[in-house]
Amino acid sequence: MQTQNMLCLNFAYADCNAVLKALQPVFQEQGMTETVHNWEDHGYLATYIQKNGSFANLRIYPHGLVLVDLQSYNDQTKGREETDRLLDKVEERMKELFHGNIKRVKRLPAILRGGAIDRYWPTADGRLVEYDIDEVVYDEDSPFQNIKILHSKQFGNILILSGDVNLAESDLAYTQAIMGSGKENYAGKEVLILGGGDGGILYEIVKLKPKMVTMVEIDQMVIDGCKKYMRKTCGDVLDNLKGECYQVLIEDCIPVLKRYAKEGRMFDYVINDLTAVPISTSPEEDSTWEFLRLILDLSMKVLKQDGKYFTQGNCINLTDALTLYEEQLSRLYCPVEFSKEIVCVPSYMELWVFYTIWKK
Amino acid sequence: MQTQNMLCLNFAYADCNAVLKALQPVFQEQGMTETVHNWEDHGYLATYIQKNGSFANLRIYPHGLVLVDLQSYNDQTKGREETDRLLDKVEERMKELFHGNIKRVKRLPAILRGGAIDRYWPTADGRLVEYDIDEVVYDEDSPFQNIKILHSKQFGNILILSGDVNLAESDLAYTQAIMGSGKENYAGKEVLILGGGDGGILYEIVKLKPKMVTMVEIDQMVIDGCKKYMRKTCGDVLDNLKGECYQVLIEDCIPVLKRYAKEGRMFDYVINDLTAVPISTSPEEDSTWEFLRLILDLSMKVLKQDGKYFTQGNCINLTDALTLYEEQLSRLYCPVEFSKEIVCVPSYMELWVFYTIWKK
Repeated sequence: MQTQNMLCLNFAYADCNAVLKALQPVFQEQGMTETVHNWEDHGYLATYIQKNGSFANLRIYPHGLVLVDLQSYNDQTKGREETDRLLDKVEERMKELFHGNIKRVKRLPAILRGGAIDRYWPTADGRLVEYDIDEVVYDEDSPFQNIKILHSKQFGNILILSGDVNLAESDLAYTQAIMGSGKENYAGKEVLILGGGDGGILYEIVKLKPKMVTMVEIDQMVIDGCKKYMRKTCGDVLDNLKGECYQVLIEDCIPVLKRYAKEGRMFDYVINDLTAVPISTSPEEDSTWEFLRLILDLSMKVLKQDGKYFTQGNCINLTDALTLYEEQLSRLYCPVEFSKEIVCVPSYMELWVFYTIWKK
Repeated sequence: MQTQNMLCLNFAYADCNAVLKALQPVFQEQGMTETVHNWEDHGYLATYIQKNGSFANLRIYPHGLVLVDLQSYNDQTKGREETDRLLDKVEERMKELFHGNIKRVKRLPAILRGGAIDRYWPTADGRLVEYDIDEVVYDEDSPFQNIKILHSKQFGNILILSGDVNLAESDLAYTQAIMGSGKENYAGKEVLILGGGDGGILYEIVKLKPKMVTMVEIDQMVIDGCKKYMRKTCGDVLDNLKGECYQVLIEDCIPVLKRYAKEGRMFDYVINDLTAVPISTSPEEDSTWEFLRLILDLSMKVLKQDGKYFTQGNCINLTDALTLYEEQLSRLYCPVEFSKEIVCVPSYMELWVFYTIWKK
């Protein structure tokens, strides 16, 4: 595990040379050897190398920004302590010498890279977030995707499909939102779930005494992983692919939807819980949007006139993607209306949009 | 604004020299000049310097970890594009040459430092999280603390007191939790709020027709900032410090509690919304825990026998701090019982514990 500690100092104004001279002894005391590059116009880069393989960069910008980055290779705790101590000294020295002149001091939590556990799973809108992950529970490649289940201290096990945080055991809010936020009566109803391999939706709906739930999940390995490690989400519902009021089909949902449409089979609810960029074995999709529209069109064909279609949209900040999705809704074979809801899903660390769609 | 892009490659095994030789041309094509340090036992550090002030570190560890960090000083977009392009090339080259040998490739979202907007506000449990902050709305030092109100695209305005994320306009869940999660009847009741300068609790309780709410906030500047920039949270309730059924006292809560205790004034609800590390002008506290216990003891003195005391605890991962807090509860002048609830507050990016405390 490699540890990177980062310190940032903003000066009202900086004499690059004075900052360099002030900090040189701090690094040299550690037995670090120095190489300095002087850009003249762009300030200094001093690189300090430690015998044990650690090193530091001191970058001094002439308009008053000083950055100190320390990289050490050690076990996590030792690496953190070593770099923390050195950065403490740098900070102290700077405050001693340039007290009134420092506008802002910011130290970031250390970044840990290269170890067995990866704690960084960026949000859908591209922000860096660190999770409290302490264990890799499951990590396998299926024919369709990489499947990881990682343990978070606060969120429980988290299902991550091809790098995309799908659902954690803490995320009942997601399952409730994609089921219509408690406003629907599932008793005696026919329900179709597209995807949903974590079993959360199936588990919650089965409790509500539906007539029949059919879930179509392409990836048996997602089910295998979740039934073992996401039991707070799926309970025992994935232990068998058939129950009193449900069946799970391990199939691509496109041909299943086509078959149902041809047979005239109709549902009260269709819940699309496919991954954000859906997987299919069917060759028809030229683009993600056309594929999404194909699924929507086929879903509308098997949805009763007074039925409802639920799906997750995207994070609230991706306004362009949300607008494009809503445009697709106006291009279906039948006219539809929709509403949307913004929900806080604990493990997502960003607000998420859910859609309800119905036939006009 | 300084941009730092980070790429991490894990190899099954790495020939350090082969990796260095493979990547040298990629950097040299950019007109970057190279300095190489060879540790022998600990691999290589190659530093590449660009004329415009940018530079890159290529760190090759002999057991198969390769880290490439690029720092550029540019406006945000240009910096990102430049470093993205160079990292694309590094990644391509590595995949061409060491295809089967690369176990994992991870690129982190760029870290932006030194600019006017700081997007990194670590969680209470010390994790690095980036917020979608796009504007500094308010930034002032009061006699008690630094007060920032920053705008987040998804959470609305966020109140940050001395670096600690307090509340965002998205965080009604916080206010509801610290009011007892909708299970209490505030109509006709006497309520005391300690702190609560953002006005969220006051605004929500006033809607419920209490007899009288007294809020004691030490920092007038928090109120001034929030009444202007947190109106989704406080509505118009802070526009006047006195209303039909409420009053706001700009005072340290300790002497107020003592006065009320002496006068025998009693409340149905006491809501402690003080900051995690509370501020006081009173000299009695020897430590944070003694101070917390003093507030708890005084609060119990003004709480009716069947009254309830609500407070926020801490993030769920700080189990030691939570245990210590619960220990304080067993050391009050009167015996109390408590329950706790775990709540997802959208802008916190971590689960938060709330306490309800009552007299035995």
